[in-house]
Amino acid sequence: MKSLADINGYFSQFIEDKNYNRSPENLYLPIDYMMHLGGKRIRPALLLFACEAYKGNIEDALPLAHAVEIFHNFTLVHDDIMDEAPLRRSQTTVHTKWDLNTGILSGDAMLILAYQALNQAKEEHQPALLKMFNDVALLVCDGQQLDIDFESEKEVSLSAYIEMIRLKTAVLLSASLKIGAFVAGESKEEQEKIEQFGEDLGLAFQLRDDYLDVFGTSEEIGKQVAGDILTNKKTALFLYASEVLKGEEKEQLMYYYASKDFDGQEKIEAVIALFKTCNVDRYIVDLMKDYYDKAITMLESLQMDDFYKAEFRKLSEKVISRLN
Amino acid sequence: MKSLADINGYFSQFIEDKNYNRSPENLYLPIDYMMHLGGKRIRPALLLFACEAYKGNIEDALPLAHAVEIFHNFTLVHDDIMDEAPLRRSQTTVHTKWDLNTGILSGDAMLILAYQALNQAKEEHQPALLKMFNDVALLVCDGQQLDIDFESEKEVSLSAYIEMIRLKTAVLLSASLKIGAFVAGESKEEQEKIEQFGEDLGLAFQLRDDYLDVFGTSEEIGKQVAGDILTNKKTALFLYASEVLKGEEKEQLMYYYASKDFDGQEKIEAVIALFKTCNVDRYIVDLMKDYYDKAITMLESLQMDDFYKAEFRKLSEKVISRLN
Repeated sequence: MKSLADINGYFSQFIEDKNYNRSPENLYLPIDYMMHLGGKRIRPALLLFACEAYKGNIEDALPLAHAVEIFHNFTLVHDDIMDEAPLRRSQTTVHTKWDLNTGILSGDAMLILAYQALNQAKEEHQPALLKMFNDVALLVCDGQQLDIDFESEKEVSLSAYIEMIRLKTAVLLSASLKIGAFVAGESKEEQEKIEQFGEDLGLAFQLRDDYLDVFGTSEEIGKQVAGDILTNKKTALFLYASEVLKGEEKEQLMYYYASKDFDGQEKIEAVIALFKTCNVDRYIVDLMKDYYDKAITMLESLQMDDFYKAEFRKLSEKVISRLN
Repeated sequence: MKSLADINGYFSQFIEDKNYNRSPENLYLPIDYMMHLGGKRIRPALLLFACEAYKGNIEDALPLAHAVEIFHNFTLVHDDIMDEAPLRRSQTTVHTKWDLNTGILSGDAMLILAYQALNQAKEEHQPALLKMFNDVALLVCDGQQLDIDFESEKEVSLSAYIEMIRLKTAVLLSASLKIGAFVAGESKEEQEKIEQFGEDLGLAFQLRDDYLDVFGTSEEIGKQVAGDILTNKKTALFLYASEVLKGEEKEQLMYYYASKDFDGQEKIEAVIALFKTCNVDRYIVDLMKDYYDKAITMLESLQMDDFYKAEFRKLSEKVISRLN
């Protein structure tokens, strides 16, 4: 029986060994660069592991795991352009290392390469897989659009934000699990159950990112603490606070989020104080735990051996580990 | 028996009746705008007409025609960003009417929508269609990359240019014909024959565009004559001239193509005079005719009724009509 870590290692090696470069080099070298920039390869690993847990043949699932990983990296290349991000995984983003046009066109080719990987799946699976893949791919675009829209919207509700992160990040993770179950021949009902598990887990992880940015340590998050506050990012924490704070406190919060020209340390301390006034930390931790509990309840009901459930549980527990 | 014009009208109406807009509107309204910007709908019409000519059911081919049209429009949205083009079909381009990020993300969603259309084809056809579609989609990206590369290359040969236009424009037209033949159940051999017909015809049409830009009338081309000369575009005419002109004449040509700061009329007259010195017009007309002849010879060998051959011939003859 293979552990999730084994499968993750197997897939990482698979990508490591791939050479995406071919002619014309200006198109494919950036793709090779991006595909080898690292990352946790969590989505493809979960896809393969779900297939394994349901006693499927992971060789059948490998083209889909590859498709999901290329797709995910395609979204990163184009999102980094839209966010004007200079760095990704501590290295130069494609549009920065090359240029805007290279970022656009290499990203486009990656999206096509994802479908080319899908085309390596068993023929009889392809129509259903194509539907699943198209559906989730469009949802991810919808999520990215909502993210862009929110930047210029005055009032964004926490529930609208959660819907955005569900689309932008959770659905690809949950679709990966569903696809793994599909390839292993599981019923529609079982596919949807593991999909729901993945969605709740994905939401919990995303909320944890927002939480740790403010309440974690720089070692935990691998970057400067409270970067989201400094850049006025509308995270779950900010949105909850802006919903529940009233009067002068709300005005203060808005004052700090209206500009980036504050003394960093002063701003961070003031905003964290406001967050604590309305118990944002407590609220977000509880929200994460709700999603975590929902995920675990669903996990227990899945039709797989205890070994695999334990592996999924171990992964899930990372969500609630080391919370203050 | 339906004529090519009938089928073109049928498909244009099909697109006319489609509403691509849905939520989030900032993502899908630009798609709806682009899909209704007009255009000749020649690729989907040829796909459907090939299916009809081979006695296939054009309802089976409709999702593929739709996929090809959405894909073509996706390439236009992203190419217009890369070319910084303000206008397309005399109307504002997506990234100009909205913004860069909208152009990128709406284009991405269109590419996915093309695969969603393909997913409406008969299930047993889908794996083979997905392969054809992926292959041609990547070739189109390759062609766009070569086009970008050529802009900054000092010496581009005419043959490299022809390979670029083959990839960037001819292969989508030829793949459309091939897909129509495939859906109608034609043999691999017959599919490849009509594909070759389409490729040669597509190259001839593209060379005609280059030719008419300089030697046509403004009514024929719907824009200012010699725009390609004014913008120093490396067309087939320029590349042939730069290959065969020597000494002072070559220097003169390069002098005019080194800058855009000339008096327009003086530059146009001087360049045309240089073109005529080396009989560019004659050379390109002969080259077009070679491709046209090759296409017609292939057309005659196709296994379809004379009515359909006559329709394809009528279309092909437009390539050599009204040449000086």
